[in-house]
Amino acid sequence: MPLIVQKFGGTSVGTLDRIRGAALRALATQRAGNDVVVIVSAMSGETNRLLKLAHDVVAMPDARELDALAATGEQVSAALMALAIQAAGGRARSFLGHQLKILTDSAFTKARIKAIDASRVTDTVKDGTIVVVAGFQGVDEDGNITTLGRGGSDTSAVAVAAAIGADACEIFTDVDGVYTADPNVCPSARKIERISYEEMLELASLGAKVLQIRSVEVAMKYGVPVHVRSSFSEASGTWVVGEDASFESVVVTGVASDKGEARVMLVGVDDRPGMVAEIFGALADENIGVDMIIQNASVDPGGAEGPAAARGAKTDVTFTVTKTDLPRAKVVMDRIAASVGASGLRYDESVAKVSVVGLGMRSHAGVAARMFRLLAGAGINIQAISTSEIKVSCLVAADRAEDAVRTLHDGFGLGAPARP
Amino acid sequence: MPLIVQKFGGTSVGTLDRIRGAALRALATQRAGNDVVVIVSAMSGETNRLLKLAHDVVAMPDARELDALAATGEQVSAALMALAIQAAGGRARSFLGHQLKILTDSAFTKARIKAIDASRVTDTVKDGTIVVVAGFQGVDEDGNITTLGRGGSDTSAVAVAAAIGADACEIFTDVDGVYTADPNVCPSARKIERISYEEMLELASLGAKVLQIRSVEVAMKYGVPVHVRSSFSEASGTWVVGEDASFESVVVTGVASDKGEARVMLVGVDDRPGMVAEIFGALADENIGVDMIIQNASVDPGGAEGPAAARGAKTDVTFTVTKTDLPRAKVVMDRIAASVGASGLRYDESVAKVSVVGLGMRSHAGVAARMFRLLAGAGINIQAISTSEIKVSCLVAADRAEDAVRTLHDGFGLGAPARP
Repeated sequence: MPLIVQKFGGTSVGTLDRIRGAALRALATQRAGNDVVVIVSAMSGETNRLLKLAHDVVAMPDARELDALAATGEQVSAALMALAIQAAGGRARSFLGHQLKILTDSAFTKARIKAIDASRVTDTVKDGTIVVVAGFQGVDEDGNITTLGRGGSDTSAVAVAAAIGADACEIFTDVDGVYTADPNVCPSARKIERISYEEMLELASLGAKVLQIRSVEVAMKYGVPVHVRSSFSEASGTWVVGEDASFESVVVTGVASDKGEARVMLVGVDDRPGMVAEIFGALADENIGVDMIIQNASVDPGGAEGPAAARGAKTDVTFTVTKTDLPRAKVVMDRIAASVGASGLRYDESVAKVSVVGLGMRSHAGVAARMFRLLAGAGINIQAISTSEIKVSCLVAADRAEDAVRTLHDGFGLGAPARP
Repeated sequence: MPLIVQKFGGTSVGTLDRIRGAALRALATQRAGNDVVVIVSAMSGETNRLLKLAHDVVAMPDARELDALAATGEQVSAALMALAIQAAGGRARSFLGHQLKILTDSAFTKARIKAIDASRVTDTVKDGTIVVVAGFQGVDEDGNITTLGRGGSDTSAVAVAAAIGADACEIFTDVDGVYTADPNVCPSARKIERISYEEMLELASLGAKVLQIRSVEVAMKYGVPVHVRSSFSEASGTWVVGEDASFESVVVTGVASDKGEARVMLVGVDDRPGMVAEIFGALADENIGVDMIIQNASVDPGGAEGPAAARGAKTDVTFTVTKTDLPRAKVVMDRIAASVGASGLRYDESVAKVSVVGLGMRSHAGVAARMFRLLAGAGINIQAISTSEIKVSCLVAADRAEDAVRTLHDGFGLGAPARP
């Protein structure tokens, strides 16, 4: 019998009525001839309420206790979901992280799943019972409760689907799929019918916050077909799947923007070997991730022979970090500015990263050039550029981000249906 | 090092401020040279909130899911208590029922503890860590979460104290001890300094709702000294301990009243062998507990020789059940009334059971007679009587219950300090 995993997020279980609606959906899926496993998040607002209690008690709560506290949110919705399925005439049984042996490492508040006891799930669904799993949580080797980080229920769902060999993992959410751009910004944005894991990874990391990025990594690793769809309609959403030949015909799949980064510029640093390593080594030591890096051309004062540094050559180094990491990055820059000979430090939080993503880029040259031309045509200045095999990102002024998204979306012809 | 278990009930952890207060109390106990284990209830109102959610989903919730839901209340307070102890500079670690292997049977919503992994607790306290245990919950052989029933955290506390061989189990509550009578009814009521387990059992079952009755049974079985005291003062409360010679000198320790029962009367039933067994067997089959039983003298119509029933002898049978069981008791009575030949059924919910309790009764004759005289002197009619080795109970009209308590309390001289 086909085996379907259905994940309901916080807004989809935000009230008892919505829990009842989700229960009916799970039952309908079962009655259509499937075995069903349901993964639930905490009721919307509950995780924040619990974390606020902890932070009201102490400014820096112990991570182990925080996880024991936060895990209750999903425990409550799992029990209520099982009751709602029973109330609608079905069979259901809830399971917590420790009961399904969702084994994780001990990195409290951001644990990673290592193994799942699939037999408990597959044995329980056999007699027509819907298995309800508390998302977001696991248990470490010592029996401590762990959580997977924000949005972790997506990862729970995909990991359970992978462990039991589910035929599909449906992610029910409050939007009806993944779009070619944010519809609030770009009225011509279209729902994408099918997208590859690789493209989804780039879009997820760029601000299309429909799916937690780690869940896409797990889905890709184990080849779990993921269906992102609306809790509030029967319409099909977006399938996130392994790539096949059909993907290659489309050059650009979507456009995303992200205002979560800030730009840091070190002015007039010594252009000598090891300077860049010193800067980014110091950031790495503080566990600060860097996204875009640009080293401007060296300003050579000319004169004596020999390497540029020996002649006192200067250059500028620009990079971006997340805005949440910026205060810590400033501390690091203050500490190392002198040793790399920087004559100035500049910070800019009014920036946005705009990206175009598409598997087709691998075989179609000229996407970057076309992107730069489109932005130039709209009078939008590019402050920095970074590229990967399947995406090109440009840093622009924050107040031009929406313009840039619309320009690129229409310029790459995404408004008209393209991929079947 | 002495080992102290401290249990904080729902009102004692009802707000973050009170949790902080309880945390300071635990730390002060530790700094006074003890190892400390803290047991917490859910924040007051939380268990009711959770159960209401379940009952809003379905009228008769599945007991297994109900327990998974309700157990989150104590999980939240345990994590917050651990954080509060840490915030105050201490070391703390929370444990749930499944983490301490508080093994119970599988009677969801009213499970009984079978075993506790004491080594986990004793190992953890060794380095100065305060162990915080979520009360009320356990885990069965299959890893299902169970709860111990209302007031179950008292039982958790005493059971943990017994398992680890604690020197005392302190029960912090919103009253400052056990009284000779309800101070709201009887202004001359005194706090009892020491009371035996047996007396406490009788008082607990009679409505002095300071300690859950099952916790007293466990304390008695394992000889755990229990100290019932106020969360809001430093004063000593009431010690519940094993009996010693000093207890014998006091005839009556306390007076209690209980309006939780209703009287059932079968009028004119056949006075034949097996009739009583039929009535109470039918009640037992429905799991309805019966407290007082009175069979009135048979009314013999006279005439033929032989056993009374053969001559058509009739009698009345009266008993009491809890008011919550009364609707089900009525169904049973309707079913069996004809087969025991009852000519009428009467129910009275306006009754109260008033009891005097004291170990000294075992060696002092005449307590019952003195009780009847005192009630008669106050013009209070006795509807039924039951006795045990250490208590005498009389059923009276509900509107005379307070009068009866005051009369007996003063009549037995309880107003003046008696026991050291």
